[in-house]
Amino acid sequence: MNAPTHPIHVMPEINQRAMPTALLESLKARFGAQLSTALVVREQHGRDESSYSVPPPSAVVFAESTTDVADAVKLASAYDMPIIAFAVGSSLEGHLLAVQGGISIDLNRMNQVLAINAEDLTVTVQPGVTRKQLNEAVKSTGLFFPIDPGADASLGGMCATRASGTNAVRYGTMRENVLALEVVTADGSVIRTGTRAKKSSAGYDLTRLMVGSEGTLGVMTEITVKLYPLPEAISAAICSFPSIEAAVRTTIQVIQMGVPIARVELIDVNSVRMVNAYAKLGLREEPMLLMEFHGSPNSVKEQSDLVQDIASEHGGKAFDFATTPEARTKLWTARHNAYFAAVQSRPGCKVISTDTCVPISRLADCLLDSVAETDASGIPYFLVGHVGDGNFHFGYLLDPNIPEERVTAEKLNHDLVNRALSLGGTCTGEHGVGLHKMDFLVTETGAGAVNMMRTIKHALDPKNIMNPGKIFSW
Amino acid sequence: MNAPTHPIHVMPEINQRAMPTALLESLKARFGAQLSTALVVREQHGRDESSYSVPPPSAVVFAESTTDVADAVKLASAYDMPIIAFAVGSSLEGHLLAVQGGISIDLNRMNQVLAINAEDLTVTVQPGVTRKQLNEAVKSTGLFFPIDPGADASLGGMCATRASGTNAVRYGTMRENVLALEVVTADGSVIRTGTRAKKSSAGYDLTRLMVGSEGTLGVMTEITVKLYPLPEAISAAICSFPSIEAAVRTTIQVIQMGVPIARVELIDVNSVRMVNAYAKLGLREEPMLLMEFHGSPNSVKEQSDLVQDIASEHGGKAFDFATTPEARTKLWTARHNAYFAAVQSRPGCKVISTDTCVPISRLADCLLDSVAETDASGIPYFLVGHVGDGNFHFGYLLDPNIPEERVTAEKLNHDLVNRALSLGGTCTGEHGVGLHKMDFLVTETGAGAVNMMRTIKHALDPKNIMNPGKIFSW
Repeated sequence: MNAPTHPIHVMPEINQRAMPTALLESLKARFGAQLSTALVVREQHGRDESSYSVPPPSAVVFAESTTDVADAVKLASAYDMPIIAFAVGSSLEGHLLAVQGGISIDLNRMNQVLAINAEDLTVTVQPGVTRKQLNEAVKSTGLFFPIDPGADASLGGMCATRASGTNAVRYGTMRENVLALEVVTADGSVIRTGTRAKKSSAGYDLTRLMVGSEGTLGVMTEITVKLYPLPEAISAAICSFPSIEAAVRTTIQVIQMGVPIARVELIDVNSVRMVNAYAKLGLREEPMLLMEFHGSPNSVKEQSDLVQDIASEHGGKAFDFATTPEARTKLWTARHNAYFAAVQSRPGCKVISTDTCVPISRLADCLLDSVAETDASGIPYFLVGHVGDGNFHFGYLLDPNIPEERVTAEKLNHDLVNRALSLGGTCTGEHGVGLHKMDFLVTETGAGAVNMMRTIKHALDPKNIMNPGKIFSW
Repeated sequence: MNAPTHPIHVMPEINQRAMPTALLESLKARFGAQLSTALVVREQHGRDESSYSVPPPSAVVFAESTTDVADAVKLASAYDMPIIAFAVGSSLEGHLLAVQGGISIDLNRMNQVLAINAEDLTVTVQPGVTRKQLNEAVKSTGLFFPIDPGADASLGGMCATRASGTNAVRYGTMRENVLALEVVTADGSVIRTGTRAKKSSAGYDLTRLMVGSEGTLGVMTEITVKLYPLPEAISAAICSFPSIEAAVRTTIQVIQMGVPIARVELIDVNSVRMVNAYAKLGLREEPMLLMEFHGSPNSVKEQSDLVQDIASEHGGKAFDFATTPEARTKLWTARHNAYFAAVQSRPGCKVISTDTCVPISRLADCLLDSVAETDASGIPYFLVGHVGDGNFHFGYLLDPNIPEERVTAEKLNHDLVNRALSLGGTCTGEHGVGLHKMDFLVTETGAGAVNMMRTIKHALDPKNIMNPGKIFSW
């Protein structure tokens, strides 16, 4: 960890390249009705869930095959124009914004589940497949795909940001769950990384170089991920606590004891109130943990008994179980709606989401000081967290008409990141760097590591056309 | 998977660069008694467990710090001389051989356990720490480091080859278990990758780019890995089968049912005989599975009951348990001695070890045909496997005075690799590419992916001094 000397980052640099007429003509000739330059279409592809406003890309190509993607990239490369892959648009960090202009490649039509290999616990999909669609497709096999970032994100987007979410504490992140990729590189050629073998030492780990590269090294066109047998038994539980600290200390102890808990989510009292109002629920308005246990019936009982004991020691009460699929769905829908409930609680607001992740023993230190600071600031916010991994998110709810709120929120985030880094953590557990954390990345890893990333980028994308302006400066 | 058109690889290309006198003088001035050019020392650093003979490096530097490594690399870089990191020397693929000459950096004196963070389940070590030393150092914390490639390898070497071994079926490989690294790059600068946070989306995954890069991108000087709570209960079991097929089919079913088994190792009848002779054991001379179950006492019982039922259905018999630490150690020592027992069974022999890994459903198809071919060849061999991962090793025992045996063994390996690739597998599950599998790598991943690896290598090591001549041609 280096001394945090970076400035407080407020707005991204915008420097859009103009679309050459000859390129537009070539795209029209190649893609016909798969190309759109309509403003409404471009605007839809020029925004995401970040708080920034940037003018849209110059054109949108609706790709239907790897060849479509490769041809679009080749044309863009010939004219040095940026390429930004797009599917669901759920990025929180400005990944999809055309800060240097260019072409958005919409991958939603590439939404085929290509091969379910149930006997090997693997599945190969196109990048536009969403996580819910994938789970629907494999349901009859008795298997499931556990990675759940909340939003019904595309597998391509989840790969690009190294996403994780509620189940990562037990099943890992996209880092651990992607086996192989097909990728269109910056010159429009198509490569394959990895095989369906569970492990391999065959050369550089290009799969994991691509996972988390945020579209800056290529466009993923096929993705092979691991599946898991649906647990014999699943039990979800909700537990209220007298304070956030009590909930966090319960979590720390559960993880340190090695309980193989599948999910352990913190929801602060603000979030509970917002969710109650949004979804007409009657959840007790106190900080709470939402938990889920997977395993054999005996193992689930052992785990939940143990966690209940630990929670009780910390003043946890109302340990309510949801054992039917319907009751569990209701519980997790409440959790997943926290973001939308928060947005609705302050109509017209923009959200800045923090994403620090720290070693589990430092979770209380990192989180509690930031709660106190945020309470003192007066900014409306909610707080949720994948606390079993040491990862949590403040969502600051900003009135775009009050610029001072953004400055205050950025200062809070800045102080939070510095605190997390000083505790051995990272500025981003799962959302990625995008536009928002470029300065934080340098502070976190040091200039040497960022220079190595930049060297790789220059070598693999010498024209800087793959989602330029993200992660680090050119 | 591409059409397997590569030639059968027999011996590596040797093209040693001569040591410039000025470099030698500079090394002497900087390193004094930490430098050796004695032939016996150089020879000790110029071999590994591969079957190749290559003249040794020109000098050996005994590094005691990151600064020592960085200074050695800077001097080597100034004279375009290769650098090869060395610790235990247990590579099976020629990684440590100075095919282009250069300087061996011995890391055995960098063997400090730097920080045990028991409450976060992490530990940071220098690269010369071996896995047994690490487990001894963390024993009092109630935690352990599960990755176990058999040999008492160094953590640096295990990182470099993306090693795994017997516990990987439950705990993953070095790919999943390394959190952060300090690396001396090809220009002698020092970078850090990763933090102690359990997950991160902070830029390119340089940690995993380094893990498995076989020393070709830098020298790792600090390594942070995950630890795990020692299971509440551990039970090991041994089970004999009427045929290899029965043992393999039992394994496939255990994995497909999602049993969280910690180890499941196949030992063929040749290995059993060799181990019996070497260690004066009385193991039943039939194919067998060695298994281990970790968890709560209930969970261990559930798992072993289930596996016992599956094994019985396939004709498994004599399901013997070893529940005391001593009995378990005896069992696993037998497994780990298989290699040495085999070498001793044919005095003076050289071993060529195969390392294919396939999706679990294809394990029987891949393994049984190769057993039949190897039996028919008349080459003495043994067969062991981390079959729960679809990974297994034939060890061909070659008389170096009968060159035809090498040709036959290489042909068997070539056919085995092609079979594994056609079944969606990899040429190397855990040993790495080194000198031996460079052609296989191209067949497996295609020229496009290898070119991407080469582009990265050229960008990060433009003088080609970091362990040159390994993984792919320059």
